[in-house]
Amino acid sequence: MEICKEFGEQIQNIKDRKPLVHHITNYVTVNDCANITLAIGASPVMADSVHEVEEMVSIASSLVLNIGTINEEKLISMIKAGKKARELNIPVVLDPVGVGATAYRKEAVDRIIKNVHLDIIRGNFSEIKTIFGLQGQGKGVDSEEIHSEKEYMEEAIYVAKELSKKLDSAIALSGAIDIIAEGDKVAKVFNGHEIMTKVTGTGCMSASLIGSFLGAKVEAFKSAIFGTASMGISGEMAYEALKQKENQGIGTYRVNIIDSIYNLNYENICKRAHIEVEG
Amino acid sequence: MEICKEFGEQIQNIKDRKPLVHHITNYVTVNDCANITLAIGASPVMADSVHEVEEMVSIASSLVLNIGTINEEKLISMIKAGKKARELNIPVVLDPVGVGATAYRKEAVDRIIKNVHLDIIRGNFSEIKTIFGLQGQGKGVDSEEIHSEKEYMEEAIYVAKELSKKLDSAIALSGAIDIIAEGDKVAKVFNGHEIMTKVTGTGCMSASLIGSFLGAKVEAFKSAIFGTASMGISGEMAYEALKQKENQGIGTYRVNIIDSIYNLNYENICKRAHIEVEG
Amino acid sequence: MEICKEFGEQIQNIKDRKPLVHHITNYVTVNDCANITLAIGASPVMADSVHEVEEMVSIASSLVLNIGTINEEKLISMIKAGKKARELNIPVVLDPVGVGATAYRKEAVDRIIKNVHLDIIRGNFSEIKTIFGLQGQGKGVDSEEIHSEKEYMEEAIYVAKELSKKLDSAIALSGAIDIIAEGDKVAKVFNGHEIMTKVTGTGCMSASLIGSFLGAKVEAFKSAIFGTASMGISGEMAYEALKQKENQGIGTYRVNIIDSIYNLNYENICKRAHIEVEG
Repeated sequence: MEICKEFGEQIQNIKDRKPLVHHITNYVTVNDCANITLAIGASPVMADSVHEVEEMVSIASSLVLNIGTINEEKLISMIKAGKKARELNIPVVLDPVGVGATAYRKEAVDRIIKNVHLDIIRGNFSEIKTIFGLQGQGKGVDSEEIHSEKEYMEEAIYVAKELSKKLDSAIALSGAIDIIAEGDKVAKVFNGHEIMTKVTGTGCMSASLIGSFLGAKVEAFKSAIFGTASMGISGEMAYEALKQKENQGIGTYRVNIIDSIYNLNYENICKRAHIEVEG
Repeated sequence: MEICKEFGEQIQNIKDRKPLVHHITNYVTVNDCANITLAIGASPVMADSVHEVEEMVSIASSLVLNIGTINEEKLISMIKAGKKARELNIPVVLDPVGVGATAYRKEAVDRIIKNVHLDIIRGNFSEIKTIFGLQGQGKGVDSEEIHSEKEYMEEAIYVAKELSKKLDSAIALSGAIDIIAEGDKVAKVFNGHEIMTKVTGTGCMSASLIGSFLGAKVEAFKSAIFGTASMGISGEMAYEALKQKENQGIGTYRVNIIDSIYNLNYENICKRAHIEVEG
Repeated sequence: MEICKEFGEQIQNIKDRKPLVHHITNYVTVNDCANITLAIGASPVMADSVHEVEEMVSIASSLVLNIGTINEEKLISMIKAGKKARELNIPVVLDPVGVGATAYRKEAVDRIIKNVHLDIIRGNFSEIKTIFGLQGQGKGVDSEEIHSEKEYMEEAIYVAKELSKKLDSAIALSGAIDIIAEGDKVAKVFNGHEIMTKVTGTGCMSASLIGSFLGAKVEAFKSAIFGTASMGISGEMAYEALKQKENQGIGTYRVNIIDSIYNLNYENICKRAHIEVEG
């Protein structure tokens, strides 16, 4: 497939350009985000003081915002950095971790969206649906009504597309099958393994990978696809490595994920990537 | 032993219920706490903003407080979350990391205890003794006077029991032999390995495991026993895995601990658990 | 070499003394800093609340300051802790992470230097040069003018020596060849591997190792040499372990580094250390 060739080439592009990816992120998975950014060939910087985020983002190639352990100080820094990024045409990714869990997280995402143009929003169905409910009409979006996998996919694609149009952002909706939408374009990524949900931070790390592609000047829709698929492929490679030895578990699996991203290249991407693009 | 059978069954209970364990914890070992919670089959959420902790704890099944990197903001959040937890009958564990080290940590624990009912306090002898000194009369509690292992055990059991009665909390006192006390009931857990003290966060992770049992509706005394013994057994399994290959050290050991918790099941628990319950 | 024998002996000295190393550091690599401190045989404590840092540093044997995720609160705590450390003759290391990146980081380092005597500053060429530009005349310090490796070494040694004299600090300047300077004394450490730059936190961990030697009463110049060389040797051992198995990457490499520090001893240090001292 053409898309897989380009995917393989863009991995090399990241390694050549070594884009600086500025993160304002949570303290739970921040080390994994830094190491996964290095593993794919980009360069991470984590800085969240209101006194420096505008200057830091100015020297970066992309900005990753993650609300995992959001507080007022970080939120103000995110908005400052995001506005400056827009001014300088530096692309921005948002990972709205657990946005449906509390009113404060909803408010935080609302304030970010009102102040910052987001090139990509990356989240699971529940998170993306919550944002759609905040920003859209929420019509027909009720997980209670979803009875089959087919219904889930239709609903998820509908929400992703509509939110994309509403916010002029690409949407990366993670799940058993990942959905990427930008306007009427949709891609499905079939890579991944269910054990990935048993390690903290695979979502956060996906956002860092998406930020790495964005920082290497890959367009938003493709950055969302390639970042998501990089994590999915690495999740599969990590699982194969896990099964080579008995008595291993998610401690080893977490290490294997970063190893696998480090070992991504044109050949294993072309062999493993399972991506379908429509529209 | 009956207790070991129940222990083995409750591990499956956690995997079935997948309780949400809300942590307000330190930034040193937070990633390990999240992954160990996932490894045993529960689901972690880390959130500490004063703007959301009450709402977050309301959807959780248990709350873990850890003062490892305490500051005023976190302390206020802990008290808010703890009060709300009590209101909703959600059980609370406290890990008073290093409480003896500074006046501020003593004050923090004092303020938590005055405002929040703690179902379980988990700490080492020095930490538990410090709290007993704060809250009790401190009579006869002087490590200078302890000359033998027998004297240590007597002293530790006395302090754990008295503090338990004073605060109406179960006490999990970690050491070469772990002591669990609730009122006049005492249990000893003989599992564990001394190399566990060479990795940061084994105490914090124990608190997360205790919180996982609590979240699965296991009573406080047994949650303290099972959480503590889970860590001890996993510490033994991790050490056995460490010795299978040369030139490994505490980097690998930390990974092995999380792997071992992931692999706990009825069979290896019944085979390995070494627990004595009295009273 | 005499210096390597002493290096080997001082590793044992750390294990015997188990010095408490107080860190006020960033939340990205803090877990690695804690584990590497344990791995070499010292004991870490991370505490940054303004309400307790003076008391915490008072019971510590050394203090490590790291501006990786600096903010006003941490900066005030660093200065408080640093002043108290000086008062009590407790040695202080500074790792000025990314000091050249933003005006705020420059200001932060400036405020630290104006208030706290630093026994050792550990950074890469760019960071050390930035501080020299802030504190010195900056004469002849222009990376644009550096064309060869020889020129780089001359420039780096010049900057390290001059900054050392200006601030009365030992300087540990990391690079392909590490340079340690104190007044007119200079040492070169040839250990290390380039893959170390692909893992986040190797610099931060070096600072923790330097702090561990300092805490064991090793003089500043030698602490800087031994801490730097410990990381370099461990980076080599970790790479050898990495190559023993296919498909590994920087996830495993990070684990190997901590394992290797844990396994440092008189024998492998004497065999591997490659240090040259002049002046």
